Amino acid sequence: MHITVWNEFRHEKTNEKVQAIYPDGMHNVIAGFLSDAGFDVGTATLDELEHGLTDEVLDNTDVLIWWGHMAHGEVSDEIVTKVQNRVLRGMGLVVLHSGHFSKIFKALMGTTCNLKWREAGEKERLWVVNPAHPIAKGLGEYIEIPQAEMYGEHFDIPEPDSLVFVSWFEGGEVFRSGCCYHRGMGKIFYFRPGHETYPIYKQKEVQQVIINGVNWVKPDQPVTVNFGNVPEMMG
Amino acid sequence: MHITVWNEFRHEKTNEKVQAIYPDGMHNVIAGFLSDAGFDVGTATLDELEHGLTDEVLDNTDVLIWWGHMAHGEVSDEIVTKVQNRVLRGMGLVVLHSGHFSKIFKALMGTTCNLKWREAGEKERLWVVNPAHPIAKGLGEYIEIPQAEMYGEHFDIPEPDSLVFVSWFEGGEVFRSGCCYHRGMGKIFYFRPGHETYPIYKQKEVQQVIINGVNWVKPDQPVTVNFGNVPEMMG
Amino acid sequence: MHITVWNEFRHEKTNEKVQAIYPDGMHNVIAGFLSDAGFDVGTATLDELEHGLTDEVLDNTDVLIWWGHMAHGEVSDEIVTKVQNRVLRGMGLVVLHSGHFSKIFKALMGTTCNLKWREAGEKERLWVVNPAHPIAKGLGEYIEIPQAEMYGEHFDIPEPDSLVFVSWFEGGEVFRSGCCYHRGMGKIFYFRPGHETYPIYKQKEVQQVIINGVNWVKPDQPVTVNFGNVPEMMG
Amino acid sequence: MHITVWNEFRHEKTNEKVQAIYPDGMHNVIAGFLSDAGFDVGTATLDELEHGLTDEVLDNTDVLIWWGHMAHGEVSDEIVTKVQNRVLRGMGLVVLHSGHFSKIFKALMGTTCNLKWREAGEKERLWVVNPAHPIAKGLGEYIEIPQAEMYGEHFDIPEPDSLVFVSWFEGGEVFRSGCCYHRGMGKIFYFRPGHETYPIYKQKEVQQVIINGVNWVKPDQPVTVNFGNVPEMMG
Repeated sequence: MHITVWNEFRHEKTNEKVQAIYPDGMHNVIAGFLSDAGFDVGTATLDELEHGLTDEVLDNTDVLIWWGHMAHGEVSDEIVTKVQNRVLRGMGLVVLHSGHFSKIFKALMGTTCNLKWREAGEKERLWVVNPAHPIAKGLGEYIEIPQAEMYGEHFDIPEPDSLVFVSWFEGGEVFRSGCCYHRGMGKIFYFRPGHETYPIYKQKEVQQVIINGVNWVKPDQPVTVNFGNVPEMMG
Repeated sequence: MHITVWNEFRHEKTNEKVQAIYPDGMHNVIAGFLSDAGFDVGTATLDELEHGLTDEVLDNTDVLIWWGHMAHGEVSDEIVTKVQNRVLRGMGLVVLHSGHFSKIFKALMGTTCNLKWREAGEKERLWVVNPAHPIAKGLGEYIEIPQAEMYGEHFDIPEPDSLVFVSWFEGGEVFRSGCCYHRGMGKIFYFRPGHETYPIYKQKEVQQVIINGVNWVKPDQPVTVNFGNVPEMMG
Repeated sequence: MHITVWNEFRHEKTNEKVQAIYPDGMHNVIAGFLSDAGFDVGTATLDELEHGLTDEVLDNTDVLIWWGHMAHGEVSDEIVTKVQNRVLRGMGLVVLHSGHFSKIFKALMGTTCNLKWREAGEKERLWVVNPAHPIAKGLGEYIEIPQAEMYGEHFDIPEPDSLVFVSWFEGGEVFRSGCCYHRGMGKIFYFRPGHETYPIYKQKEVQQVIINGVNWVKPDQPVTVNFGNVPEMMG
Repeated sequence: MHITVWNEFRHEKTNEKVQAIYPDGMHNVIAGFLSDAGFDVGTATLDELEHGLTDEVLDNTDVLIWWGHMAHGEVSDEIVTKVQNRVLRGMGLVVLHSGHFSKIFKALMGTTCNLKWREAGEKERLWVVNPAHPIAKGLGEYIEIPQAEMYGEHFDIPEPDSLVFVSWFEGGEVFRSGCCYHRGMGKIFYFRPGHETYPIYKQKEVQQVIINGVNWVKPDQPVTVNFGNVPEMMG
């Protein structure tokens, strides 16, 4: 079971505030707490060859985590198609925060994945609305993030197979913040928190949810499906 | 197509504040705007014989609207079972506000239907999270209620077949405020607004949602299902 | 309220058996019964300029019906993107039979939309599994199609928002045959029946379902959503 | 993690055919393969004191498996209410076959849970319709049961949170055979196979699904929810 953490890794190079929080890049902080939790973890970034997602890397990835923001358009369509096919054949996918607007998430959802947003450092509270779901394992009734970018409804996504979190924002909006999908032989978890200018991936409860998300999306002997012509009746 | 508006009709008799807002009872205000919208509407209340829900009334009711709060326990189990059976055979049901804790809603949901609450006259904003749904017809992106009782998650209900509204509350909570269910040959819509001490059912957008809800739950030639032994194979 | 029936219109020109059943094309049979049902209907086909789906046509279409099979690859990506955007902004879409593999359905679903199939003229029985759903209006407990091409699971689609029909096939397979989706401000209904070598669109129950499907997907004042930056807090 | 297998245990005492297949009762066969799979398992039956479901037993049960058929009416309402409350507070529940008509399943579903049936020893094929779901772990594309009692749609249940299996029957019917629900802090899995006159619980794939079901419903630090008055705003 191998996790690859993909990060656009641009804000960290250009914005001092982000650099101060994530000097080695967000991917290394995420890979770090996953590694501490006992997972085998690698990283990949936009500016590597093939964005770090070569066939070899993808073939050996059981769960892919995706963070992107300012350079979604630079991700090659060919790689996006490869990743989409891998998810549909069983690879788990965790999409974080501004990854809502990544090509891969939009391709898998089929919708615009658009939303409202505001950068005002306001308080966010993610309420658990499905306490029986494994993605809420070990949490309290809500997670509070002291300062966050706001994302507001309407969030243009398919209705989730399971909705786990709904966010409340100080400024008056709500957001479906933890959304589970089955797609093909794979599973997808979208999780909202993670703006680059706040140390959100250093918060324990946020790390716990990402660990839970990895455990939920990871493939566990999914059924191998055969498509196409079945010439004989067998009824 | 006949609507019956059922109201516990107790607060209006005992609480001056409620009486001032709904001198003839909440049911008559609800029946009034539905009638103005062109529906054929009757009412029924707890203290009538058989709570006003005789076999004759139920047999002629296509959509039942339910408001109750302080006297859920006084509703007879026999009537609850009759209403449940009618819903499962096709009658539409709209459950309002504190009706979340009514025997009929709990029986149809199978869960406790419990929640958090606070009476602080705080602001509520109901965000549309499914803009394609007929229950959101003709609305803006949200409905704002200036003063409301708070209901907060976790709301212990089955995950809705469609979630239409999520409420934001000034005090820090969120709530799944518009929930659609198919049950048997019938449909159920739960809609949160409506505390008795605020004139919420006089607000146009709230009325619009209740009208939309009636149109969504109303039976329209549902399939008649036969259960039981089917002795012959017909494959 | 205007319906456009889109048909690839190739089989009818090249296959005598299909020509015998649909001499004027499948689209005209479908447009015919919809017109008889009181709808305002036009048609469009692959070999027309812009596949008959000019901006003017799309702007005036409230519900688009899609049948394609042998030439999915010839539909231009630009038109597909336009249709997808129209659906996400509210236009209803009914996808029929082999349209499961059309570019537009795959783009909106995000999955391969692949399945099993067999051409053996076997019996199909579509069972209603949601008798309360408006798409089952006026039907019996099942629809029987005497001779059909088989489609079998696994059908690689997102779990439907509502599943209305499940097909039984003589040869031993099952299939989710009636699938409802909300996407953006629009609604999508996939309906399985319709192989070109059987007179399936002349069968009354099949026509009834397509009429019900049109009524379910048609836009009815969907909420207009604004996306993007919301600079001010209003909580 | 402790499993309790509950069995009505009546057919085995009165019907020679059943006795021949399950001489020590169905519960012991089920407990046996679960124990072989490494679980800690106990059993309980209808005719024991409190049906074997004392407070002590329930308090120590993480997953309850339920098989009943001819004596649903003899299960005490008090015990049913206790079990329902335990499920809503987190205990997993696996309901097998004719348990669809048990008081506990009907109470948790809120519907009649009725269906069609036929005893004709016909072939059943359970198709996986959600290959990514953990309940399908390690299976092929379908499970074939050579001789089974038929259960047919319409099955009067709430639309499942995830539908994993759909059955095909030789005689012409289909059935939603593997249904997942989240209810309160608990999870419920309904699985169709298991008529008492066929050795169905001795079939490896059926055992695999029950093991997968136990793993899916088992509570894993579900969120502890507090209900009721929250006097202070904290926004």
